[in-house]
Amino acid sequence: MKTNQNRRNFLKLASLASIGSLISPSSIYAYSQSLSKKIRIGLIAVGFRGQSHLNELLKRDDVEIVAIADPDKKMLALAQKILTKNNKPNVKEYSNGDYDYRNLLKNEKIDAVIVSSPWEWHKEHGIDAMRSGKIVGMEVSGAMNLSDCWDFVKTYKETKVPIMILENVCYRRDVMAVLNMVRKGMFGELIHAQGGYEHDLRGVLFNDGETAYNSGVEFGEKGFSEAKWRTNHYVNRNGELYPTHGLGPLAIMLDVNRGNRLVRLSSFASKSKGLNKYIVEHSKGGENHPNAKINFKQGDVVTTQIQCANGETILLTHDTSLQRPYNLGFRIQGTTGLWQDFGWGEANQGFIYFEKLMNKSHKWDNTEKWLKENDHPLWKSYEKEAENSGHGGMDYFVINTFIECIKNNISFPLDIYDLATWYSITPLSEISIENNGAVQEIPDFTNGEWKTRKSVF
Amino acid sequence: MKTNQNRRNFLKLASLASIGSLISPSSIYAYSQSLSKKIRIGLIAVGFRGQSHLNELLKRDDVEIVAIADPDKKMLALAQKILTKNNKPNVKEYSNGDYDYRNLLKNEKIDAVIVSSPWEWHKEHGIDAMRSGKIVGMEVSGAMNLSDCWDFVKTYKETKVPIMILENVCYRRDVMAVLNMVRKGMFGELIHAQGGYEHDLRGVLFNDGETAYNSGVEFGEKGFSEAKWRTNHYVNRNGELYPTHGLGPLAIMLDVNRGNRLVRLSSFASKSKGLNKYIVEHSKGGENHPNAKINFKQGDVVTTQIQCANGETILLTHDTSLQRPYNLGFRIQGTTGLWQDFGWGEANQGFIYFEKLMNKSHKWDNTEKWLKENDHPLWKSYEKEAENSGHGGMDYFVINTFIECIKNNISFPLDIYDLATWYSITPLSEISIENNGAVQEIPDFTNGEWKTRKSVF
Repeated sequence: MKTNQNRRNFLKLASLASIGSLISPSSIYAYSQSLSKKIRIGLIAVGFRGQSHLNELLKRDDVEIVAIADPDKKMLALAQKILTKNNKPNVKEYSNGDYDYRNLLKNEKIDAVIVSSPWEWHKEHGIDAMRSGKIVGMEVSGAMNLSDCWDFVKTYKETKVPIMILENVCYRRDVMAVLNMVRKGMFGELIHAQGGYEHDLRGVLFNDGETAYNSGVEFGEKGFSEAKWRTNHYVNRNGELYPTHGLGPLAIMLDVNRGNRLVRLSSFASKSKGLNKYIVEHSKGGENHPNAKINFKQGDVVTTQIQCANGETILLTHDTSLQRPYNLGFRIQGTTGLWQDFGWGEANQGFIYFEKLMNKSHKWDNTEKWLKENDHPLWKSYEKEAENSGHGGMDYFVINTFIECIKNNISFPLDIYDLATWYSITPLSEISIENNGAVQEIPDFTNGEWKTRKSVF
Repeated sequence: MKTNQNRRNFLKLASLASIGSLISPSSIYAYSQSLSKKIRIGLIAVGFRGQSHLNELLKRDDVEIVAIADPDKKMLALAQKILTKNNKPNVKEYSNGDYDYRNLLKNEKIDAVIVSSPWEWHKEHGIDAMRSGKIVGMEVSGAMNLSDCWDFVKTYKETKVPIMILENVCYRRDVMAVLNMVRKGMFGELIHAQGGYEHDLRGVLFNDGETAYNSGVEFGEKGFSEAKWRTNHYVNRNGELYPTHGLGPLAIMLDVNRGNRLVRLSSFASKSKGLNKYIVEHSKGGENHPNAKINFKQGDVVTTQIQCANGETILLTHDTSLQRPYNLGFRIQGTTGLWQDFGWGEANQGFIYFEKLMNKSHKWDNTEKWLKENDHPLWKSYEKEAENSGHGGMDYFVINTFIECIKNNISFPLDIYDLATWYSITPLSEISIENNGAVQEIPDFTNGEWKTRKSVF
């Protein structure tokens, strides 16, 4: 077992090195904290996403769950149930209202926290954690305000506490195979990229207050799980609310913040019809249901054009209020290759074209053969470990990277600048839409360092 | 034969009526010109596109080709060859330089002209024709300047001479089937639409000066056919150069200028790499070829976001300088249906989803069954006639509509306002790109009439 474990660690280290995560051996612990052998984790927010991370962490023998914090007793009970099932009963709880997480952050036994809270809490949870000297794994979202992004960066500069944005789609098998092909040069020079979040969330945004999915038309106080908070963003905001699943993988391929940067954007929003229609037509809703009177500000389809410093363009689409099959709509287009995604990550759900390798056929090839031939080394090595993990294995990789970087003193491949840049798309898109699509400059959160920072993913 | 002919005319008239082209019985001839039984046509410009129209017209017994004009002797000879082959030798030629077409326009035997000239000539050819009282069929392009669009509209208002924009993709079989489904309400309320011109034109933009396609790296004076003029636009401009194939079908479905209108746009352009790479890597090119030094201004991928007055958004993509399979990339998204095109118009090359009809499967269906079941009545009736026509039959329909509208005194379904609106996208996108994506207002060329004009396509 020990030998196996050592071998496993070695392999992990080798593959981390193979993805080039090494910047400087001391970088992640520049704030000099001594760590126990096991990485001691606190979870801030244990809703369904936090519980999913909990399940992932409990599979590992190099992690100890020290404490969990959530104001929601129901969710805490579900998390404790998972812990008990895994023979870890009586984990310390912080449940005394919205700010008891600050007491978790004072817990000296904790090395790192994973934040899976509602979007509007990310800034406080993340910044407070950094100020407490806890390494942060931060779930994805977009910022509430542009200044939040700067606050993240400033806090990082002051504290030097590392933070990783836990963008799992960067680890999707097809995405990593395409990244592999991009790095091999098969796409030539990259020119244009597309991605987005095209996912029918109506059954998530509304429920009956008891069952999370497809169970009703309530939200906010009367809703359960995501419907409790996420839907309010659709009432009060209009923008690219959830940019990172689409943008993250593209930013990696385009070396954003590492030789390239996002310069400016313009966003357009369609009218808002999908959510109202869902409420009106639902068996538990109807024209006379109070929620049928609500004016959802969020446009059903929001598109965002982005210009990169190196001349590439990116197009993001946020499309979550209408009936549709799931499809993040990736497109990677270079001078010698073109990939278009059309599903939920299965190898055969895309189109691909390489003129030279396909004898100028001018015909799409199915992606399956290409993605399998160019499977990323990480996926080849960890297929088995990833197999039973969330979201088709992506969740294994994102958590594994977080833990292994901490253990091995390696900088996170998705760091504070990626977090700030990706998060900034949301408030900038909102300002753009409010001003009829007016172009917004995207700040350089690296303060010029993007020119010399090396690609590490 | 006569009975067949009458029956055929009746069918044509019936189907024109069925697509609702009737605005006012007198509208098309408001400028009161008497017409002979056969529609007497003059062709302005008989390059390959003009010759394709010529072939189409020569199949008809209700049309007489009276004259052709082109400064290019080679193209004139090719056109005469087609005419001779069809037992129409010695058609009057106007070949004395760039402006001899004006003498064709003085020819009293001509009822209507079809203009298939290089883009930069459309304005002069179209406006001069209207001023001469000749009905105009105008090939597609984008305007050189926004003022050109206004000049078209002003000339129409002064002369009342009808002009039709010959946008053939509006008649593509899959596009018309989807239009049919949209009109039946299968997509619900439309929310978002995409289209574009995604077609690898490198082998068209460059040739050896003798053979039109894939034969070399010359253009301009040393090029042949489209390479003679089209490529210069890529040297000097950066914009949505060719908007109508993508926009036309979407504009019909969205009732643009007929209850709806395009309000504003923002365009982003990627860097320009494809054309230079093509020249450098071509066996007749190379790094030292003089054209390898040329700085092509046109970005390889140009995206344009458009907002509609009724709240829908449109996304156009111009992508013609890179290796890729042909795909206009249509997407029609409504509250109850979603179509995405992935080929060149074959029935089985797309994805479609109707939640209610597909039992909330959340899975794409192949389009074939749906497009066949909802084949447009026009295609059902004229499949045979269209069979051997250009571009998969589209060219039959666009020319047939042009001629039948004239014969039957029916307003064109694609008219002066469609022309001006669609053409305006090009200069507005150029201004937007020059100004880093700054939003441009799209003029209301109908001067408010869009609110009351009825859908006629």
